[in-house]
Amino acid sequence: MTVTAAVDFARVNGGRFVDELKALLQIPSVSTAPEHAGDVRLAAEFVAAELRRIGMENVRLIETATAGHPGGHPLVYADWLHAAGKPTVLCYGHYDVQPAEPLDEWKSPPFEPTERDGNLYARGAVDDKGQMWMHVKALESLMAADGTLPVNVRVIVEGEEEVGGEGIAAFVREHGDALKADVALVSDTEMFAPELPTLCVGLRGMIYTEIEARGARTDLHSGMYGGAAPNPFVALAQVIAKLKDEDGRILIPGFYDAVQKPAEDELKAWKALPFDEEHYRETEVGSVALTGEPGFSVLERTWARPTLDVHGMPGGFIGTGAKTVIPAKALAKVSMRLVPDMSPAETFAKYKAYVESITPEGIQLEVRLIHSGDAIVVSTDNGYIRAATEALREVFGRETVFVRGGGSIPIVGDFVRELGIPTVMMGFGLPDDNLHAPNEKFHLANFHRGIESIVRFLGRV
Amino acid sequence: MTVTAAVDFARVNGGRFVDELKALLQIPSVSTAPEHAGDVRLAAEFVAAELRRIGMENVRLIETATAGHPGGHPLVYADWLHAAGKPTVLCYGHYDVQPAEPLDEWKSPPFEPTERDGNLYARGAVDDKGQMWMHVKALESLMAADGTLPVNVRVIVEGEEEVGGEGIAAFVREHGDALKADVALVSDTEMFAPELPTLCVGLRGMIYTEIEARGARTDLHSGMYGGAAPNPFVALAQVIAKLKDEDGRILIPGFYDAVQKPAEDELKAWKALPFDEEHYRETEVGSVALTGEPGFSVLERTWARPTLDVHGMPGGFIGTGAKTVIPAKALAKVSMRLVPDMSPAETFAKYKAYVESITPEGIQLEVRLIHSGDAIVVSTDNGYIRAATEALREVFGRETVFVRGGGSIPIVGDFVRELGIPTVMMGFGLPDDNLHAPNEKFHLANFHRGIESIVRFLGRV
Repeated sequence: MTVTAAVDFARVNGGRFVDELKALLQIPSVSTAPEHAGDVRLAAEFVAAELRRIGMENVRLIETATAGHPGGHPLVYADWLHAAGKPTVLCYGHYDVQPAEPLDEWKSPPFEPTERDGNLYARGAVDDKGQMWMHVKALESLMAADGTLPVNVRVIVEGEEEVGGEGIAAFVREHGDALKADVALVSDTEMFAPELPTLCVGLRGMIYTEIEARGARTDLHSGMYGGAAPNPFVALAQVIAKLKDEDGRILIPGFYDAVQKPAEDELKAWKALPFDEEHYRETEVGSVALTGEPGFSVLERTWARPTLDVHGMPGGFIGTGAKTVIPAKALAKVSMRLVPDMSPAETFAKYKAYVESITPEGIQLEVRLIHSGDAIVVSTDNGYIRAATEALREVFGRETVFVRGGGSIPIVGDFVRELGIPTVMMGFGLPDDNLHAPNEKFHLANFHRGIESIVRFLGRV
Repeated sequence: MTVTAAVDFARVNGGRFVDELKALLQIPSVSTAPEHAGDVRLAAEFVAAELRRIGMENVRLIETATAGHPGGHPLVYADWLHAAGKPTVLCYGHYDVQPAEPLDEWKSPPFEPTERDGNLYARGAVDDKGQMWMHVKALESLMAADGTLPVNVRVIVEGEEEVGGEGIAAFVREHGDALKADVALVSDTEMFAPELPTLCVGLRGMIYTEIEARGARTDLHSGMYGGAAPNPFVALAQVIAKLKDEDGRILIPGFYDAVQKPAEDELKAWKALPFDEEHYRETEVGSVALTGEPGFSVLERTWARPTLDVHGMPGGFIGTGAKTVIPAKALAKVSMRLVPDMSPAETFAKYKAYVESITPEGIQLEVRLIHSGDAIVVSTDNGYIRAATEALREVFGRETVFVRGGGSIPIVGDFVRELGIPTVMMGFGLPDDNLHAPNEKFHLANFHRGIESIVRFLGRV
């Protein structure tokens, strides 16, 4: 009984697994920050060394930096392919993390992993170092139980998920054979509620853009030039106010043309989920009211409707006090979440054309695409999803719920398109884990349950 | 002939005067930055020491820091009151400077004064250390010529002009007797064109504000919460787009109610000034088009019409690359320039009430006043203005033009209101001197002409 022995091994060694994760979390592998490139590579080497130690084979770093993609971070690859006649599972995760700013809002430093109340706090705790580490530890536990794995396994761990995943996308496109598998396993999503086993069967796509507004040639004094010189911030405000109306409806012509409505069954299942909008507003969001398109529930708005957000507006004077400058330029970081069947390229083209058409007088706008990813919906009618729900039932003693995620994991689309395989998105984060925000955490009980669930899933596939 | 001897002294010592100014410009006396508080004091002491050295009396620093105004920077005071029966001139200047950011746009470092092509480049070169130093050097030259001054003189130099001048305003209000004079002389304005002697007879007032928008309790992931969580940047964009329409007209109810139109004579004189809007657009502003209210000339729009500008929007993610955050809060730094007879307090009240009335759903707004100042118009029909125009004619060989300034020098309003004295605004900056912007400069020929003009003005008063 490999699986039972592996589960026992994971229970006995759980404390060590957490200690190892802490060591990985201490490495500030912020993929968007050039100054952390060395840390990103260090994290890759850390993961590769552990895969080698637990008995995986062909472990290596695959460089992704090319002339067209300078500064690309390496992929970590490993496999074990000796389960003749059994399917091959492709385990995917990422070792890079979001920037930790604003630093002053962290209760403990983002790269000094700290346990409080059964949670492990650190940047990357749940997204995705902690969840990726569950895969590694599940493989170790199975391998430790009797020296083999119950299925063939390939592992691919990337270092650019938080910056668009260009390197892995190119690799999947060009070297798909090297990742040949029957199903992918991705643990980069969350459970719908504590204790509620959850599989994610849909993800929004995205386009992340910048609008740069240029007015005067140089910064000008607002006393002397105010009333004659164009103001890039006022211009960006006017543009943004025309991108989204006050009800949250996006005003880009044709934006909603390709949007697919979820099936009636799926909408009905969402209505049955334990979800209270007022409780969500109060405990998760904490704003005085929720926003978004009228006529859609919060779950529809965050899972099945496209949205537009502004993340920051660099430029001008942002210090304390007063500086009376009309800045020469200002930027808006604007992203849109897409749903099936919106094309990122077509959506960006519509957005760019519209923004250019509403350019305020005196201003020159440049609209840039930073990165993009397809939306995805996975069919629940396959043996891998069934194997996953059975594994989760054994661990949690409850039936699995199927949800969608509002976020984007572009690689899942690449797996469908380039490798022709479905993905099981089995995640163990919680709604209050503060992904991408200060005080990111991973509930440690879920770390251990996740390892056991993955062990059981691999045993059943 | 005190005046002739003083002019000769200034010419002989001009090189030394510039060297001294360079030493003063090396002190980064950025009044808005708490970390530069020591530098601000150092600049005050530098000015006081020189006033003492040239023979001024009662030289002292006057502290302005109080419980209600912590961190206030000192005033520098000096006088020489032995010209019995002669009027008293109050020489005003400021030794503090604007922040130097963005640093990477300076061709030479902002606090390493550098001469290029007859100009002296440094933060504060013209605003106002260089122009304030003209006063000191004019007094030195007169004093050196025969050991006395032709009039009574008080000198007051502040260190908070760039942050609203609260300290000097309180001092003028509470200790007006200590500054008793017949006329004030302020050199903190510019010439309308090179070689064209200029007196400024009007200034816009201002209110500088911050709007803080708060949405969610903490930063949220835009994938997971986009479509439900309010976005403070989108909210601020919607508010700003409702503050000013695309023609540059301000939409705050009642905003224009008190605006005084300039007299027909003044408007006619402005039309006669050597000013070409297309040339101004191309050489000074450098934008593809000018903006502002239709139906008003550029000079009217920048001198006699109120305006609204946004200076920066702190918050969220401003690094390079992508971060998919819905920030919990964002700020907009918004200022308005006011014209006679707009009250700063009433204008702020109207603005605040309006902004609050258009608060987007899910957002909490806080509107804060950072500082404010009155608009001012000076009558040209007085002996001091005539003395100034005669002094300028002797130096430049041309008739003086009367202009207004778009900027704000709140102290000029305080001199009228609290001391009951008119101000002669005799400035020697040039339109391309980059006030408040990178590569601020002072044309050195104007520094020397300015000293001579002030010597001659003091000789005539």
